[in-house]
Amino acid sequence: MRTLLIALAAASALPSIAAAQTMGAAESPALAEAEAALDSDTIAWDFVEGITTEVGPRMPGTEAEARARAWAMAWLRAEGFANIANEPFMMQTWERGAETARVTAPFVQPMHIAALGNSGTTGPDGLTAEVVYFPSYADLVAAPAGSLVGKIAFISHDMRPTQDGSGYGFAGPARWTGPALAASKGAVATVIRSIGTDNQRVSHTGNTTFPEGTTPIPAGALSNPDADNLERVFARAEGRPVTMELLMTPRFIGETESGNVVGEITGRDASLPPVLLACHLDSWDNGTGAFDDGAGCGIIAAAAKHVATYGQPLRTIRVLFAGAEETGLWGSRAYAAAHADEPVFVGLESDFGADRVWRLESNFTGSDPDLYRQLAQAVARFGVGPSTNVATGGADLNLVREQGGPLIDLQQDGTRYFDLHHTENDTLDKIDPVQLRQNVAVWTAVVGVLANHRPAIVQGE
Amino acid sequence: MRTLLIALAAASALPSIAAAQTMGAAESPALAEAEAALDSDTIAWDFVEGITTEVGPRMPGTEAEARARAWAMAWLRAEGFANIANEPFMMQTWERGAETARVTAPFVQPMHIAALGNSGTTGPDGLTAEVVYFPSYADLVAAPAGSLVGKIAFISHDMRPTQDGSGYGFAGPARWTGPALAASKGAVATVIRSIGTDNQRVSHTGNTTFPEGTTPIPAGALSNPDADNLERVFARAEGRPVTMELLMTPRFIGETESGNVVGEITGRDASLPPVLLACHLDSWDNGTGAFDDGAGCGIIAAAAKHVATYGQPLRTIRVLFAGAEETGLWGSRAYAAAHADEPVFVGLESDFGADRVWRLESNFTGSDPDLYRQLAQAVARFGVGPSTNVATGGADLNLVREQGGPLIDLQQDGTRYFDLHHTENDTLDKIDPVQLRQNVAVWTAVVGVLANHRPAIVQGE
Repeated sequence: MRTLLIALAAASALPSIAAAQTMGAAESPALAEAEAALDSDTIAWDFVEGITTEVGPRMPGTEAEARARAWAMAWLRAEGFANIANEPFMMQTWERGAETARVTAPFVQPMHIAALGNSGTTGPDGLTAEVVYFPSYADLVAAPAGSLVGKIAFISHDMRPTQDGSGYGFAGPARWTGPALAASKGAVATVIRSIGTDNQRVSHTGNTTFPEGTTPIPAGALSNPDADNLERVFARAEGRPVTMELLMTPRFIGETESGNVVGEITGRDASLPPVLLACHLDSWDNGTGAFDDGAGCGIIAAAAKHVATYGQPLRTIRVLFAGAEETGLWGSRAYAAAHADEPVFVGLESDFGADRVWRLESNFTGSDPDLYRQLAQAVARFGVGPSTNVATGGADLNLVREQGGPLIDLQQDGTRYFDLHHTENDTLDKIDPVQLRQNVAVWTAVVGVLANHRPAIVQGE
Repeated sequence: MRTLLIALAAASALPSIAAAQTMGAAESPALAEAEAALDSDTIAWDFVEGITTEVGPRMPGTEAEARARAWAMAWLRAEGFANIANEPFMMQTWERGAETARVTAPFVQPMHIAALGNSGTTGPDGLTAEVVYFPSYADLVAAPAGSLVGKIAFISHDMRPTQDGSGYGFAGPARWTGPALAASKGAVATVIRSIGTDNQRVSHTGNTTFPEGTTPIPAGALSNPDADNLERVFARAEGRPVTMELLMTPRFIGETESGNVVGEITGRDASLPPVLLACHLDSWDNGTGAFDDGAGCGIIAAAAKHVATYGQPLRTIRVLFAGAEETGLWGSRAYAAAHADEPVFVGLESDFGADRVWRLESNFTGSDPDLYRQLAQAVARFGVGPSTNVATGGADLNLVREQGGPLIDLQQDGTRYFDLHHTENDTLDKIDPVQLRQNVAVWTAVVGVLANHRPAIVQGE
């Protein structure tokens, strides 16, 4: 609680109290709209219910993602957005194949596995090898060079839930770079404990990375219950070798087309840089992309619409439904390249599920305290606190980062996000409509302020 | 609360208060052992941890089930049981094949499906047909004869959790007889909403039954999130036909061997009929059989051992780890046939997970009130209440039912049982060690009374 009180004290010590207070009246229609959205928004739900029902999984670069783009463009049209476009780009596309895993000695039993994005293949005949158990990523780091020749590395580095999602940074390296590290020590394959906080029998997929020029080894994630079981197999093996049979046949299918879908609420002054609201339209292939990131697209579109309800905003509000985020930010990079010379007023992304927003962060909190405080006052009523953390922006905001532009992060409660992340369980039923509407309300309040703010944002160096 | 108070009042109105009270002293070592088990039993956990780790899934009639028998016999030997035996029997064995499901119109997306036991096959090429939606089993019953010719029936009859598991009786028919009923009206296949109370992306398998002489149609269970999604597909189809592509290739592999494993704590008086404690050793092929029913075998064996700890019991305690329960009570029937002429003093089974026992039922509550009250007094300290419900015994107690013998049901809390039942999620991590030990304590108390009770149980007509 102390941190929060200090932050509030800092906010109230900011110079322009009077300015902020005079905003009170002007804010009214915007905040009334935001408060109404808290109780009755249906737009965000309609989007995420629709895309999960009528499209479902939409893997980057596939025909399913193309169907998602067509669906989203039709939806934006029906909702009255202007300047709707698909901005195509090419990408290297990875597809899942068969995937099975089985402990073969000293005991025999099947295990649930999912290949990680960019995983290599075992070939159609699979492979069988002895497994070397690393309780943590640090243990793998400490393994001598060459010590894994012919072996399967098992990295069991586990993850605990945190409200701010910081556990991902702690456990994530096991997935992000563990397979490449194991390969560099001679491993023929890597299995990791899922980077997830649930105990469901579903594997958490997600990308892993191999250095340029190296051959990817097969790399997969066991579900947490399977990783628990494999740890017990080691305990009960009492020194006997533990072997595993793996079959994983993912492949790169070459260059295919993806695309970014954009739409706008046009502002009164076309000469002013737009407010850019981002999410990503693609999803992993196992769930239906409800939490990640159908909800985010629904939230940003709903907020843009609600702001427009009480009058045409000063600035254009652009929504970016980015393509191909999951397998390497292809859409974010393409968008940044295509629009490099178009200034953005401020960028915000929703891509952390559908649970409540609890904290407001920006990268101009100190340099433009008036605006920050105006935003903080607008969202406090929805249970969102201020913070001196510096916003870094969502994955699809490469454009704004490359421009060195203003960013806002509306941090969502991530306590259960990694129960669902990149699994079959990322489905509509996991979305709490009440918390989804709180997101829409907060976004409506924030976007309402931003889209009607004429001065450029003062940024620190 | 009123029901409980009435039941307690009825119990205290029973005639032999004095007799029960004189049992107080004699009970002491038994109850001290039971109370110690509540805090420190390790036997039940050792069994279920061991079999889920060293064997895992153990489908009836398969080599995995044979490994489970060998494992269980070695375990019983190590625990000091006597007269350990495998009693083999032959059975018709069904095995899962490939299984995929995909909505193909008016939208396209994959769905999670698992074939039901006894399901027919689609053949290797699968089948595609229009889906007819039945919100409940009653709706399917009401469908006219011949109305499903060439169609896939979708029965979405859903289930809610109940402490006593009674929701299974409400929702179960959709699985048990729904596919045969749909087939009788011409359906080429049936998909049901999983008979389960979770919203995880796992399908609940389990047996379905087709009448003698009919050809089984393909029958599978969608996970609850998938069934939700299919309902929404129907809502958004707005009258357009919904079609689904199914591939399921399970098959009967003919007659194979299964077996019942038995072991004993031998009593002082071999002329007295034994106390029979049952569980089943087999499991479905998707989980590791922790809740269903590794825990049950661990509980009954632990109780038998604890009773023996404070002195050789008067009567023999026999544990029956039945084979092949899941696909048709093959072990129960074989055991009943093989031992038909051997009287059993009383039969009890543990086969409803590992959550706490909350109610004591028997089929002699009214006819032998002294014994019933002695048992009720022994378990009240563990939070178990009396009941006038008539016990019917577990699935593997066909022998006792056919003998018209005494039965006790130690009812477990089933609130979350059907979250896990017959799914991949039936794994060790779901077992709460504290509640598992409460089971052992209650069973130790009850078996301690029974195995030292000389008079035959007075049974009503």
